Amino acid sequence: MGMNFLVGQSGGPTAVINSSLAGVYETVREMGQSKVYGMQYGIEGLLNGHILDLDEKLSSPLAIELLKRTPSSYLGSCRYKMPAPEENEEVYKKLFDIFAQYEIGAVLYIGGNDSMDTIARLSAYGSRINSSIRFVGVPKTIDNDLVLTDHTPGFGSAAKFIATVMKEIIRDSTVYDLKSVTVAEIMGRHAGWLAAAASLACTEDCEGPDIILLPEVPFQADRFLNEVRRLQDQKPSVIIAASEGVKTADGTYLCDLSGSEAPVDAFGHKAALSGTGRYLADLIHHGLGCKTRAIELSTLQRCASHLASRTDISEAYRVGGAGVLAALEGHTGCMSAICRLSSHPYQYSTELVDVQQVANKEKMVPREWISENGLQLTADFEAYARPLIQGELDPMFVNGVPCHLSQNNL
Amino acid sequence: MGMNFLVGQSGGPTAVINSSLAGVYETVREMGQSKVYGMQYGIEGLLNGHILDLDEKLSSPLAIELLKRTPSSYLGSCRYKMPAPEENEEVYKKLFDIFAQYEIGAVLYIGGNDSMDTIARLSAYGSRINSSIRFVGVPKTIDNDLVLTDHTPGFGSAAKFIATVMKEIIRDSTVYDLKSVTVAEIMGRHAGWLAAAASLACTEDCEGPDIILLPEVPFQADRFLNEVRRLQDQKPSVIIAASEGVKTADGTYLCDLSGSEAPVDAFGHKAALSGTGRYLADLIHHGLGCKTRAIELSTLQRCASHLASRTDISEAYRVGGAGVLAALEGHTGCMSAICRLSSHPYQYSTELVDVQQVANKEKMVPREWISENGLQLTADFEAYARPLIQGELDPMFVNGVPCHLSQNNL
Repeated sequence: MGMNFLVGQSGGPTAVINSSLAGVYETVREMGQSKVYGMQYGIEGLLNGHILDLDEKLSSPLAIELLKRTPSSYLGSCRYKMPAPEENEEVYKKLFDIFAQYEIGAVLYIGGNDSMDTIARLSAYGSRINSSIRFVGVPKTIDNDLVLTDHTPGFGSAAKFIATVMKEIIRDSTVYDLKSVTVAEIMGRHAGWLAAAASLACTEDCEGPDIILLPEVPFQADRFLNEVRRLQDQKPSVIIAASEGVKTADGTYLCDLSGSEAPVDAFGHKAALSGTGRYLADLIHHGLGCKTRAIELSTLQRCASHLASRTDISEAYRVGGAGVLAALEGHTGCMSAICRLSSHPYQYSTELVDVQQVANKEKMVPREWISENGLQLTADFEAYARPLIQGELDPMFVNGVPCHLSQNNL
Repeated sequence: MGMNFLVGQSGGPTAVINSSLAGVYETVREMGQSKVYGMQYGIEGLLNGHILDLDEKLSSPLAIELLKRTPSSYLGSCRYKMPAPEENEEVYKKLFDIFAQYEIGAVLYIGGNDSMDTIARLSAYGSRINSSIRFVGVPKTIDNDLVLTDHTPGFGSAAKFIATVMKEIIRDSTVYDLKSVTVAEIMGRHAGWLAAAASLACTEDCEGPDIILLPEVPFQADRFLNEVRRLQDQKPSVIIAASEGVKTADGTYLCDLSGSEAPVDAFGHKAALSGTGRYLADLIHHGLGCKTRAIELSTLQRCASHLASRTDISEAYRVGGAGVLAALEGHTGCMSAICRLSSHPYQYSTELVDVQQVANKEKMVPREWISENGLQLTADFEAYARPLIQGELDPMFVNGVPCHLSQNNL
């Protein structure tokens, strides 16, 4: 008979979060288990009774191939913070009632550190009430800020998109014989992994960004302007990749210096930082008097599945599958992580880590992977990140645009 | 012996402007002619003595294949307005001296309507002084606003990028179970072709944008807000594609309306106008109270060669070659245009048109291709535009990112 599985997606989407869903679904099928249900809009949607039978949606091989190429969360997502059981046990009772109703044996939750907090709380509560349900986290975030995993699925594709479009923007920026500075603003409110990925634009045919600003390095306006001035004496077009989370030594975000007031989400995070690129472009314009422009790479960083990394797609699929195997082996309160075996050649395996140790923590770019002056990445960063952007999975083009799996078209 | 050719690129770059350069170069070679020189930074660069021998750069087949996949103007570009000869004949004398020095028989200029003005002026001046040099324009602009050609090379690739990322953004926007409105700002200050291309996101698996705002249709805030309200009663996530050039009936750009509050930057100086998308997002937020976000598709619209249309690349190449043939046949003061033979199946040929009739004119989206309420495109627009985004030319990925032809790497 086998076990019924329930799978959900949570937090911000990525280009490959659906590949993890595909890995979960197909592994359950291959292991001869019973139903696979999907939460619609994550735990929050589940609390509202939104549950799908995935066998009705994903049973054809074409559906799975399309799913791997479909950006954003196929099941829908949420940003829901689980209350502590002692504050609101009703939520737990309601969820475990739903689990019982559908005879769920294992719950897999694909998400970032907030989602791992959800898994940690559910498995702790489950233990307390002697539930046999297994709760397993599957890592996902473009931000690459989860601890205890070499990297997170979603990062490689975002990094590939960022490196590719930085090359294109650099070429666009050098087209006129004019002094100019271009600032590209890149996602990452706390950790600078995505801005660091801009350095991967540096290849035989491209110098890459001239300066990379990370949240890990306190911003000093004078040093920064001096460096821009020095660069502009050497080359007309200067390119800066800046994390949206760049801040000064006292912890003030540059985008707050620019005066924008951002709302706060359920987790106490600033919901939408923007304006760092604009701030820097204005700073340079007033400081050096040259032409500047600010470009936000925007939401495409998390949804440009047309340029996903094949390595990332495969790994996302595999950690999904590993989560299913972990549950079948009786593990709970764990996350399937990626463990790097070597960088040259790139090899990895999966392993299980304690989800409690992952929840609510953040991994920063190590200082030793940042150049001494704080404005570039080192060869160690490249050795780490370059393997993660290798390979492509061609979109299926229909009518000139990539085809996605929607809940209606197959 | 044959003729020496001189080729330049001018105006804003596109994803396929280099494919026209490839078409020019290879056609000159195939026709057994002599040298091909390139102006660096257009006519303005030429006036400063910047000229390249393209045989040193483009003679290998691999270089040509990379060139076709390289965004932005390989030769560099300029935005230089030719003075009238009666105002400043020195410029003409200097240019014709350079032509004589390099024994140039034909000048090809790849560009938009300003560049066609340059060709018109040079050929008129050449006739006046009995020069035998032929001056031929090769059309190029993502804006698709040139008259006397069915469409312009560059438009198809920009349209394919816009349609693809609109699909991805739409999917990203529906991920949470929340009412929200997303406004994507699309290039096109005068003509709405690019914003109209957002409608091509509408395919079996995607409804496409709910509203498309074009410069051709005067903006009425009340009607617009009513339509957004009506849509939001039907679906939580409403998507709007807006041309940066949307204006009110009295001709005021929305981005200028957003300047009525006289925004200042963090340094107390008047800020750059915040943009049409931001204005619309704020209007909706204040009018309807829902969550909104504004996304600028930005400069990637003109340089995302990683997602170029193969149809566009081929056509760009072919109009370049047709320009060479025109010059060899003795034509001057003309532009090689695209003439559509049929839409189903899509077939075209090239023809020569009078460049004087092209210069300084703009072609708008016809009113009959816009729906009656002014907020969508019709099937006639799709029949026109859909063929132009068909096909892909896979980038050559090296180290995980597309390889380009730079002036140094081959």
